[in-house]
Amino acid sequence: MSEKRYLILAEGRSDDPHYGKTARGVLSYGEQPVVAILDSARAGETSNGIPIVATVNDALCFGPTTALVGVATQGGRFPPEWRELLRSCIAKGLDVENGLHEFVSEDEELASLAARHSVELRDLRKPPPDLNVPTGENLGLDTTIVLTVGSDCAIGKMTVSLELDRAARARGLASRFVPTGQTGIAIAGWGIAVDAVVSDFLAGAAEQLVVEGYRRGGTDLLMVEGQGSIVHPAYSGVTVGLLHGSAPHLFVLCHLAGTTEVEGYPGHPLPSLPELVELHERLSLPVRPARVACVALNTRLLDEAGAREAIRLAEAETGLPADDPVRFGANRLLDAVVQNRL
Amino acid sequence: MSEKRYLILAEGRSDDPHYGKTARGVLSYGEQPVVAILDSARAGETSNGIPIVATVNDALCFGPTTALVGVATQGGRFPPEWRELLRSCIAKGLDVENGLHEFVSEDEELASLAARHSVELRDLRKPPPDLNVPTGENLGLDTTIVLTVGSDCAIGKMTVSLELDRAARARGLASRFVPTGQTGIAIAGWGIAVDAVVSDFLAGAAEQLVVEGYRRGGTDLLMVEGQGSIVHPAYSGVTVGLLHGSAPHLFVLCHLAGTTEVEGYPGHPLPSLPELVELHERLSLPVRPARVACVALNTRLLDEAGAREAIRLAEAETGLPADDPVRFGANRLLDAVVQNRL
Repeated sequence: MSEKRYLILAEGRSDDPHYGKTARGVLSYGEQPVVAILDSARAGETSNGIPIVATVNDALCFGPTTALVGVATQGGRFPPEWRELLRSCIAKGLDVENGLHEFVSEDEELASLAARHSVELRDLRKPPPDLNVPTGENLGLDTTIVLTVGSDCAIGKMTVSLELDRAARARGLASRFVPTGQTGIAIAGWGIAVDAVVSDFLAGAAEQLVVEGYRRGGTDLLMVEGQGSIVHPAYSGVTVGLLHGSAPHLFVLCHLAGTTEVEGYPGHPLPSLPELVELHERLSLPVRPARVACVALNTRLLDEAGAREAIRLAEAETGLPADDPVRFGANRLLDAVVQNRL
Repeated sequence: MSEKRYLILAEGRSDDPHYGKTARGVLSYGEQPVVAILDSARAGETSNGIPIVATVNDALCFGPTTALVGVATQGGRFPPEWRELLRSCIAKGLDVENGLHEFVSEDEELASLAARHSVELRDLRKPPPDLNVPTGENLGLDTTIVLTVGSDCAIGKMTVSLELDRAARARGLASRFVPTGQTGIAIAGWGIAVDAVVSDFLAGAAEQLVVEGYRRGGTDLLMVEGQGSIVHPAYSGVTVGLLHGSAPHLFVLCHLAGTTEVEGYPGHPLPSLPELVELHERLSLPVRPARVACVALNTRLLDEAGAREAIRLAEAETGLPADDPVRFGANRLLDAVVQNRL
């Protein structure tokens, strides 16, 4: 049983489009198999063919090795009722992987329980100990760095990076997805959650990530998972630190078609797409002026005709190629990226 | 001996304009007296009337209660030779205040030595434990929030905020300086070092700071100490998180006259002043559009005629009032701030 098999903990959240982000990401793109999902409200159903169970005990017959905390909450704290669930996983001999800001490995009770049951507690957001400011190595990599940016959080930037990476590799390009958040890390098995890094070392962490992505084979393309938005009232610092530290040549601008306000921040309007294109290009470092190559629209709120119309409008507004890479395939956007390569 | 009296540790750095930032800030603006400065290379001299000594022993006759680590290094790590110096301070019964990212209170050897000698180790950059994302309270304060921003780090943003605060209080305005970095904290005795906060909580920490500044009496003006620069290759994340979290009504744009490159990052040009004015205004939150009220030029590299010419040029370039508030007084810039109050 050396191979990892996930039980995804998504209690009460497995069908929530926003909060189930980690669960859905690992299901759709993960390199390790998911054998069960825990969500007592939907026990007995399946999700993409994966059984949904009510308790850790019910999951054991599917042979999981590792429980993955599959919810992301605003600010990343642990819902208190989850502690009991984690105790149960540990007692049944499962390793725990956790993507929240609250670290299970630093929780005395859980850590001592884990030691007693010889299981590992891994905090996906725990930054490596040796971070510092950037060295300039980010500017010297012989590859094309592509960062997804966007009008808001949780609109599919990670998904767009993953889809572009898949499509690029299918064309024989040496592309690597570069994970910058807890879900990306669970999917790819490496990375740094830049939002959990001490602010002064944010750009340094982003530099380490592109350097590592290059070493891992991204010698044609590095598809860097974006975070937040440059005008998000809570997370813009993460966005801009990642932007300057990853030093992209190209941006892919992501937007959830039909939205006009920052999610969870009523009264905070989203800038227009042309305004976002210009702001990102002007905010890129003078030594690494980056262009927006294309617009990735998430059209999940629209029917197919509405989606096509939204894409047409985005193209007319920005003068850039636009598409929904999940709904209609990533090739059109990848063409735009490849044509803009240096 | 309940009052605090500082011995500033500035070994090898007391005359370095960049690295002696903490020492100079506390000397010029601190609310607690400085009784001695430690820098063996300059022992026997004085600095602003304060004796410079070679060793901790030599300082004791001046009656210090607290040793302040008065250097800031790139990235904030401890120079290894400083450990011996800290041991010596602790053994002589001095509390230690430290502004680096490496925390003395978490160093086992120093912490146990401190316990033995009944002294306190205070890490000025250690964030409070209860941080989270902003709540929106930053947008509801009935005061005018003024953030210093700039073309680079270490060009005097804190000093400009302090000078404007002093001048405003001299005019009878209810103004408060809002400290956001280790030196500001040592000066004012409160605050959060936003660069040491986990990136996701950067804007939330900035919000806490303006709320606290308002509670402390800044009901006319909050002069928020700025950090970094929005196009700095290492620290822009801190800058933008602080910008959106502190939700300023007005910016004061700071620049070290005569510089054209980011310090320590050769080949990274500084944007022009008009470009910086526009970028900051466009990057402010749509719900809190901020204007640049004036330009604060640091003219320390120029003679007086050169300084006046640089100020004239900055005014012509930007169409905004400009001045060097340290050299020529803060009143002209304060006028611009007051005229732009809502």
